[in-house]
Amino acid sequence: MTHLPERLLAGYRNFMSRRYPSESARYQSLARDGQSPETMVIACCDSRAAPETVFDAGPGELFVVRNVANLVPPYAPDDRFHGTSAALEFAVQSLKVKHIVVMGHGRCGGIGAALNPSAEPLSPGDFIGKWMGLVAPAAEAVSGNAMMTAVERQTALERISIRYQLANLRTFPCVKILEDKGRLTLHGAWFDIQTGELWVMDPKTGDFTRPDLD
Amino acid sequence: MTHLPERLLAGYRNFMSRRYPSESARYQSLARDGQSPETMVIACCDSRAAPETVFDAGPGELFVVRNVANLVPPYAPDDRFHGTSAALEFAVQSLKVKHIVVMGHGRCGGIGAALNPSAEPLSPGDFIGKWMGLVAPAAEAVSGNAMMTAVERQTALERISIRYQLANLRTFPCVKILEDKGRLTLHGAWFDIQTGELWVMDPKTGDFTRPDLD
Amino acid sequence: MTHLPERLLAGYRNFMSRRYPSESARYQSLARDGQSPETMVIACCDSRAAPETVFDAGPGELFVVRNVANLVPPYAPDDRFHGTSAALEFAVQSLKVKHIVVMGHGRCGGIGAALNPSAEPLSPGDFIGKWMGLVAPAAEAVSGNAMMTAVERQTALERISIRYQLANLRTFPCVKILEDKGRLTLHGAWFDIQTGELWVMDPKTGDFTRPDLD
Amino acid sequence: MTHLPERLLAGYRNFMSRRYPSESARYQSLARDGQSPETMVIACCDSRAAPETVFDAGPGELFVVRNVANLVPPYAPDDRFHGTSAALEFAVQSLKVKHIVVMGHGRCGGIGAALNPSAEPLSPGDFIGKWMGLVAPAAEAVSGNAMMTAVERQTALERISIRYQLANLRTFPCVKILEDKGRLTLHGAWFDIQTGELWVMDPKTGDFTRPDLD
Repeated sequence: MTHLPERLLAGYRNFMSRRYPSESARYQSLARDGQSPETMVIACCDSRAAPETVFDAGPGELFVVRNVANLVPPYAPDDRFHGTSAALEFAVQSLKVKHIVVMGHGRCGGIGAALNPSAEPLSPGDFIGKWMGLVAPAAEAVSGNAMMTAVERQTALERISIRYQLANLRTFPCVKILEDKGRLTLHGAWFDIQTGELWVMDPKTGDFTRPDLD
Repeated sequence: MTHLPERLLAGYRNFMSRRYPSESARYQSLARDGQSPETMVIACCDSRAAPETVFDAGPGELFVVRNVANLVPPYAPDDRFHGTSAALEFAVQSLKVKHIVVMGHGRCGGIGAALNPSAEPLSPGDFIGKWMGLVAPAAEAVSGNAMMTAVERQTALERISIRYQLANLRTFPCVKILEDKGRLTLHGAWFDIQTGELWVMDPKTGDFTRPDLD
Repeated sequence: MTHLPERLLAGYRNFMSRRYPSESARYQSLARDGQSPETMVIACCDSRAAPETVFDAGPGELFVVRNVANLVPPYAPDDRFHGTSAALEFAVQSLKVKHIVVMGHGRCGGIGAALNPSAEPLSPGDFIGKWMGLVAPAAEAVSGNAMMTAVERQTALERISIRYQLANLRTFPCVKILEDKGRLTLHGAWFDIQTGELWVMDPKTGDFTRPDLD
Repeated sequence: MTHLPERLLAGYRNFMSRRYPSESARYQSLARDGQSPETMVIACCDSRAAPETVFDAGPGELFVVRNVANLVPPYAPDDRFHGTSAALEFAVQSLKVKHIVVMGHGRCGGIGAALNPSAEPLSPGDFIGKWMGLVAPAAEAVSGNAMMTAVERQTALERISIRYQLANLRTFPCVKILEDKGRLTLHGAWFDIQTGELWVMDPKTGDFTRPDLD
C-alpha cells in the first residue's frame, strides 16, 4: 500500500506514464543546470486557478508563490518569518526573474472573507481574518458602496487588491530599483473561473481587459 | 498589444483553445458550486515541481500553498500576518479537506541556502535567511556530518524538513483534533526532479519509498 | 547418499545439465590458460547480493572477495593473516585487474551491527564487533543524528563506508601507484535488494546515482 | 556516462531486464523479511568458481565468504580484525545456518603459491605469502614428495587444505558445540574447473568422490 490519497497516486501514475517520458530530457537538464524561470507568479491557493494550468506551463517556466488571495505583505525587514517576502527575494535576487505577475481570480474565498469581516473567525487563531487585514481599508471602502451588487463588490475588490499588491511589491527596494532600470516588469491578471477568460491589467490605467486571442 | 509576457500569452492561448473547451462544464460547475478540494498541498515555489503537474490534477482538485522550501511555521496566534497559517486554517476549517500533503523536492534552493547560512544575504532584508531559519537546527546537525557528500546532506535535510513540517502542522489545534478523530490525514512526499520519481513517506517510520506503479 | 545439502546437490545438477554444456569450451579454456579477469569485486557475504547475479557474470569474469559489509582493512604490512589484503595483492599484482569495484548493499547486517554497537556480542570472541570497528568512527557520527530515521542512517553509513573502503584501498602502495598511472580504476556501487537497482558512485563527488539503462 | 566498467553495466542490464522481473517478489520478500540462508559457503575468490554458479543458487540461498584459497584462520579471540571469523560468527550465531561448506577448486593460484614459497613476494607487504602460511606445514610435506607430479601435488594440497579448514572451523566453540548437538553440519567440496565436476568429501574418510547425478 502507499501512504498517499488514491487520487493523487493515480494522477502521479499518469504523470509518469504520459508526461514524464516526453519531457525527461527537459527534467534532466533542469536538474543538472538548475532552474532559471523568467517569470514569478503570485497566485491564490484556490484549486480552480493553478497558474501552470492557465498558462499551460511546463517544468522550469514559472516560479510560483501561492497564498490565500495572492497577497504581498509590504516590505518589513524585521526578524519575523515572511514567506512571501522570502520567495520574492529569492526570485528577484537569486533567480533574476524578468517578470512578476500578480494573478487574482473570481469568486475568491479570501476576498469574500474580507468583505464580510463580521463573520465568526474560522478558528481561535483567526489567521484568515488577520491575513485578509492586508486589504481591509479597500474592503471597507467597497463594502460601503450600497449601489453595487454583492457580485460587483467582490469583483471590484479582487481587482483593487491586485493593484494594491503591485504597489506593495514596489515597497521592496530590490523590486523598485530593477523596475526603474527596466530589468523587471510587473503585471496584473485576473482569471474568470467560469469562462476560463484571463483579464490582463493595463499598467497605465489599471483597467482589466481580455487579450486578443486571434 | 497585451501587457503580459509573450510566453504566458501563448500558453494562455493553448489553454483556451485546447484545455478549456474539454473542461468547460467542470469550470462552470466549479464556479457555480464553489471549490471542494479533498486535498491541500504545501509545496515549494520551485518552477520544476508544480503539484498540478506531478499529480496530473485538474481544476478543483488541489488547494495549493507554495512558499520557499514548503515550510509550515508553527502555530503562533499573535497579531501578525501568517500566510501559510491562513491558508491552512481556510483549507481545514472552511473547505474541510481530508488530506494535507507536504511535498518537498530534490535540489531545493531554500534547503541549499539553509545548509550554507554563511553566504551573504540576498538582500539587506535577508528574508530567505530568516525564513529558512525555520529549519536551522536540523540544518546545523546535518551540516556537521562531513562524511556525507553535499548532495547527500541536501537530500537528508530535504526529508528531515518534511517530517518537521508535518510536526509543525500538528501544533495547530484544528489539525491535531481532526487528525485524532480520523477526519484528516497528513502525508509527506519528495519529488525527484531528475527522474520524475515521487518518494512517499511512511507515516510510521518517516522513511521515503517509491510507490508501486504497476 | 551424498554428503552435501540436498538443495545444493539439486542446484549442482541444474548446473551440470543446463549451464555447463553450453559453456564447456569456456571452462576448458579457462582451465588450460588460467583466469584473467579484468575486474575484482569486493562484496558482502549477504545471500541476497551475489556479484555474479547482479552483473550476470560468467566464469572467468569477476575475481571476488566477500566479507561481512565489504570492508577493506587499511594497509598493514605486519606478520598477521590478512585475507582481504592477500586477495587484493593477488588481484592487482598477479592477475593485473584493471578495475576494482567495492559493492555494498541495502539492509546490510554488518552495517546494522555497527550502528548498534551496544548490542550483546554474538559470541565471546566478538568478531563482528571488532570487524565492524573498521567503520566505527563513521557509525558514531551517523548514529548521533537523531533527525534521520533508522533506515536513513543505515543507508547513509552503507554509502559512507563504501567511500571509506575506497580510501583504504588507496593506502596500498600498489593500488595507489597503478591508479595514478591510469592502469587501475576504483569504483563504488550500492545494490538495493528490494528493487534490484544498482546505484553507482560518481568518483568526483562520491554521490550514488542509478545508471541509465536505455 | 556511468562510472562502471562497460561489461559490468551490460551485465547489470541483463539482470534488470531478464532475471529481476522474474524474481522481484523474492527480492521484495527478502528485503522485507531479511535473509535466512540455510547454508554458508567458504569459497575462493577465483573468477572461475563462483558458488552461486556451481550450485545454481538464487537470491537468499547462500551466505558466502570468499578469500584466496578458501581458508579459515583458527579461532583467535584477540583484538585484531578477523574478516573470515566475523563472517563465521555472523552466519552461525545470527543467521543460524544449518550447513557450512568449504569449497575448494582445481588450479587454485593460492595453493600454487603455497607450493612455491620461494617465489618473490608479489609486493613488499607479501600478504599472499603470509596468508598462505596458514597451510604452510601441509604445503611443505606435499612439496617434499618427489614421486608425485606437479599437478598431483597441487590437487593433493587443495584437498588436504579443505580438510584443514574444516578442522579450523571446529576450533570455534560455537561451531563445535552446534555440530555436537546435531544442529550444524560441515561439508567439504572441490570443483574441477575443466570438467565442471564437483567432488564431495566423505566426512568419515575424508575422500572426495563425484555424486551420482542420475
